[in-house]
Amino acid sequence: QLDTDRFVATMEEQAAIGATPDDGLHRLALTDADKEIRDWFVDQLTDLNLTVRIDEFGNIFGRRQGTNPDANPVLIGSHLDSQPNGGIYDGQLGVVTALEFLRTLEDEGIETRRPIEIVNWTNEEGSRFQPAMQGSGVWAGAHALEAEYQKTDRAGTAVREELERIGYLGESPAEPTEPYDSYLELHIEQGPRLERAGANVGIVTGIVGFTWGEVTFTGEADHSGPTPMDHRRDALVAAADFITAVRRLPGTLGEATVGTVGAVDVSPNSINVIPNEVTVTWDVRDGDDAVVEQAAQRARQEAAAAATREGVEYEVSDRMRAPSISFADRTVSAVTAAADEMADCRAIELESGAGHDATHLTSVCDTGMVFAVSEDGKSHSPAEYTSWDDCCQAATVFANAALQLATE
Amino acid sequence: QLDTDRFVATMEEQAAIGATPDDGLHRLALTDADKEIRDWFVDQLTDLNLTVRIDEFGNIFGRRQGTNPDANPVLIGSHLDSQPNGGIYDGQLGVVTALEFLRTLEDEGIETRRPIEIVNWTNEEGSRFQPAMQGSGVWAGAHALEAEYQKTDRAGTAVREELERIGYLGESPAEPTEPYDSYLELHIEQGPRLERAGANVGIVTGIVGFTWGEVTFTGEADHSGPTPMDHRRDALVAAADFITAVRRLPGTLGEATVGTVGAVDVSPNSINVIPNEVTVTWDVRDGDDAVVEQAAQRARQEAAAAATREGVEYEVSDRMRAPSISFADRTVSAVTAAADEMADCRAIELESGAGHDATHLTSVCDTGMVFAVSEDGKSHSPAEYTSWDDCCQAATVFANAALQLATE
Ligand SMILES: NC(=O)NCCC(=O)O
Ligand SMILES: NC(=O)NCCC(=O)O
Repeated sequence: QLDTDRFVATMEEQAAIGATPDDGLHRLALTDADKEIRDWFVDQLTDLNLTVRIDEFGNIFGRRQGTNPDANPVLIGSHLDSQPNGGIYDGQLGVVTALEFLRTLEDEGIETRRPIEIVNWTNEEGSRFQPAMQGSGVWAGAHALEAEYQKTDRAGTAVREELERIGYLGESPAEPTEPYDSYLELHIEQGPRLERAGANVGIVTGIVGFTWGEVTFTGEADHSGPTPMDHRRDALVAAADFITAVRRLPGTLGEATVGTVGAVDVSPNSINVIPNEVTVTWDVRDGDDAVVEQAAQRARQEAAAAATREGVEYEVSDRMRAPSISFADRTVSAVTAAADEMADCRAIELESGAGHDATHLTSVCDTGMVFAVSEDGKSHSPAEYTSWDDCCQAATVFANAALQLATE
Repeated sequence: QLDTDRFVATMEEQAAIGATPDDGLHRLALTDADKEIRDWFVDQLTDLNLTVRIDEFGNIFGRRQGTNPDANPVLIGSHLDSQPNGGIYDGQLGVVTALEFLRTLEDEGIETRRPIEIVNWTNEEGSRFQPAMQGSGVWAGAHALEAEYQKTDRAGTAVREELERIGYLGESPAEPTEPYDSYLELHIEQGPRLERAGANVGIVTGIVGFTWGEVTFTGEADHSGPTPMDHRRDALVAAADFITAVRRLPGTLGEATVGTVGAVDVSPNSINVIPNEVTVTWDVRDGDDAVVEQAAQRARQEAAAAATREGVEYEVSDRMRAPSISFADRTVSAVTAAADEMADCRAIELESGAGHDATHLTSVCDTGMVFAVSEDGKSHSPAEYTSWDDCCQAATVFANAALQLATE
């Protein structure tokens, strides 16, 4: 049983760091706001007398010893970074839940056989730096440390430089230094399926696969007035064509496929100049890896077709590729059992449409997730909302499942 | 006969202020670089012993007395501001030509019956602040001073604030304080027509009309992964639709109509967030005002249709409306006569597809323009190019026409 008041107070405390005027959260990875929330997080861990460890990629761990120090530990947590003008629950709710779970164990003097580690992963969001789930990806061995250090944001600033600047380039190796028993993460659903089904808690069975990429169209800057239509190579017209094509893609692939262009950069971006360079992103997802593979190819074909139609050049680059994954029966069962125990909890199974750090953890140990319902499915927006009641129900399922894993 | 070496040296001198690494020019209106070029310009006027006057909208005038001080003056000049990463000729060539003309009069001890005034107009480009030709528009009475003071750039900074900051909020009234005889402006063509016709100098007969506007589409930010395609209101998809429609507009209106979307702003502009707010501009031009009026209506209809298709909100605002104009016979004839006098000058008549400060001057006095050929029609780009030979030929036509107007 968690302390609801402290839970809500802690959520509000974290939401104040990087708060926006419309009650959203703007706490991009490795910015000053991220440094501030990390300092806050380390303080919470220290107050709990946990052993704090920061790895070479800025992932922050806090360890609570078990009665059998040789037993493989259970890892719990999520991420504290946010989208630009995002919501206050995404990731943050998972970290606060893990923290409250440890605080409750402490309050009630509960000891567990296995050690328990709480973690805050670096750059889960993937907005400022791609790929998303970067810290967990490096730690689990999906990405090479050196390559990820060199990823840059739009201003050309590199991850390593920023880790150093904010003081979170740690010394502990960014990899599992011992075998882990299991990983459990709570997150908001970020989609409308739980709500549509009348449920408030999700037992997550796996995560869809996705392809992220970027196309740069290069035409020629020229004057919008005296330049005849047949004398133009307009990079923005090609980009518009591509955006429309990505919007049409899902309907031609799978039933549940989604496709989005989220970011556009136009140069020189002046009302009376034909744009010469436009960069657009793509993000296409599906539970079936074959569909995702097809989508990645189609994105390339659509970029080529748009460039040809407008007579401009183009260059495509991959930003991320994540295979769909399934969670282990053991961890899914632990979540199911915890939900079953709670009389008033309305839980269903579902697959996640968002990527999570849990994706990468599946290669390290048994992994599971609990979802809290999202009002109207809204996320990556200040409109993101889950009632405190629903947060607490999901958190209680999480706590009981984590306790079970740490005990068995 | 102008001093070619000094002419080229002066062009190079001005091009150094706000130079870009690719030999372009980045000197947006009322920025620090604009302050620097203004200071330089005032120095040149002072060296020529001209009477310098700065008006309430930052337009800079220098007056050379005539033998009959009561005769109505001839006004000559253009603008020193540039597009973002634009070229070094656009506008600048016109100011330097006017300067060299006055220097030559001085060198050769030529007196004119009419006073001659040289001018550098504020914010001709219209990139940072709309409308374009803002300083000449205020001075000629097309726009109200107070309304233009309050126009803001994308960062919300107002014109008046910037004029004050860079020290060019002058005291002289921003209006003609006496009757003017005529206005003459040299400019690069910025289009491919002179070159296509084998000419190097243009006798400009008038300027096309245009409509500028802005549409803001407002949908809902949401997560690109778990949000089903039927649960989206994507502002960027609507904007892409609009961009494509503006590209198609010209073909359905007039033969020479041009239509461009030059600028796009996307919020929150993150790879995995459905965009909730996207602003796009339009710029449509034609020599026939009825076609321009139709284009402005069509832009609104296309915005509405795009918004409806995607289920988003939209808001349209006008940024500028310029009627097509014809220059007075007297000034056009002065340019024609000057071109005819030069044996090796290949001049033809044409209408300008770009807006110019001359547009507004037609309401004040007889107005004319001389064009210098643009290589491959390129402009608003570092690729903008006119050979020094072609610059000098056009400048000589300008000088002789101006001398004629100042004498008669
Ligand atoms: N959960 C979440 O928002 N993760 C960011 C990566 C993604 O876009 O799925
Ligand atoms: N000449 C020129 O580039 N003027 C700027 C206004 C326009 O776009 O026509």
